[in-house]
Amino acid sequence: MKKINVLKPVLVSNKQRAQENRQKFDRMNSLVINIIASPGAGKTSIIERIVQYFKRKVKILIIEGDIRGQVDSKRLAKLGVDVVQINTLTACHLDAFMTAQVLPKIKKKYDLILIENVGNLVCPAEFEIGEDYKLAILSTPEGDDKPMKYPLLFHLARIVIINKSDLLPFVDFSIDAAKKNIMRENSKAKIFEVSAKTSGGFDDFYLFMEKELNAKKKKGKTKG
Amino acid sequence: MKKINVLKPVLVSNKQRAQENRQKFDRMNSLVINIIASPGAGKTSIIERIVQYFKRKVKILIIEGDIRGQVDSKRLAKLGVDVVQINTLTACHLDAFMTAQVLPKIKKKYDLILIENVGNLVCPAEFEIGEDYKLAILSTPEGDDKPMKYPLLFHLARIVIINKSDLLPFVDFSIDAAKKNIMRENSKAKIFEVSAKTSGGFDDFYLFMEKELNAKKKKGKTKG
Repeated sequence: MKKINVLKPVLVSNKQRAQENRQKFDRMNSLVINIIASPGAGKTSIIERIVQYFKRKVKILIIEGDIRGQVDSKRLAKLGVDVVQINTLTACHLDAFMTAQVLPKIKKKYDLILIENVGNLVCPAEFEIGEDYKLAILSTPEGDDKPMKYPLLFHLARIVIINKSDLLPFVDFSIDAAKKNIMRENSKAKIFEVSAKTSGGFDDFYLFMEKELNAKKKKGKTKG
Repeated sequence: MKKINVLKPVLVSNKQRAQENRQKFDRMNSLVINIIASPGAGKTSIIERIVQYFKRKVKILIIEGDIRGQVDSKRLAKLGVDVVQINTLTACHLDAFMTAQVLPKIKKKYDLILIENVGNLVCPAEFEIGEDYKLAILSTPEGDDKPMKYPLLFHLARIVIINKSDLLPFVDFSIDAAKKNIMRENSKAKIFEVSAKTSGGFDDFYLFMEKELNAKKKKGKTKG
């Protein structure tokens, strides 16, 4: 587990640097997912599920973004996958420059790179970091109205995972209303309902991910 | 309910403008609380409880900050209190300039001004807006480790409300661990455990607020 404190250069635009990151990730033929959600929505728990399911099939790297500390990195490193920690210090999101500083440290080829962004439903959505796409998580205790109130992330995310379905009996959350609110921002979003706690509901999501990983692999072979 | 779209002037620093706001609030003798939490932690529900308890005793104004929309303003206006909506458009937090634009619209004297910030555990903590103090809300489904991972808000908040105590049997959250994590950032924080849903646990908090409101009133009389 590597810890990187980040200084932010300002000469190149974030968008330009994100494109450069993306090209590097593409050369490594990695599927790169930028995972964005509120604090406590279940980003780390969902990453744990993905790792447990896929770690025997594909090589996985986790890039862990936190303002400070390494709580989640330590938790994820226990699963036996490689983890790189970025501490953003004061920044409320990862940006392409921070991510760029990780790239020289990547010595192996990874099929799947999961980037856990800082817990924040607003700012991380504004900064591309070189990802193939964004995965948003909405947890049921947050309420089904959140896509209306924090539209940008839901507008941009390819995948939206509704997490903590195990709490549905105890919170005021309608899956139908949530889906409607997500679809209003983004009619193409792939929506999955899961409980990272009980592991329920992940089958469809794993199937989708499997297809994505295979498509990326095929693309790599065509290139090669 | 008034709706204000905000343009951000840049000539004066946020801190300076916050002090000016604070002086104006002080002249009106209002207790001003800046309420900050993650999306869906229960900011609006807790404001509803405060309004229901205090609206017959004191005059209340709510300043409602959202990126877009008026979902919460409409909900709060139903309680019969005055509500001013600020739409931040893209900004992930309120700042002192946005708040300053509300001030000329305040024609009455309010004893209590509750400002609901944009749902975000990071950025709103960085911007003073003229408040007497910050009130942070941490909801149990978010996890008891959040004060470690998002330290600034907990460092600055005078009050921390642990909300959604009704979900404690169903989530991995230790009240003791949460309190320890909050106190490590801020040994003077007043911590209350409540459920805005069931209304449980509010008595101590109401008593505290009552004292604060009386102290403000006394201070006003001394000045007058």
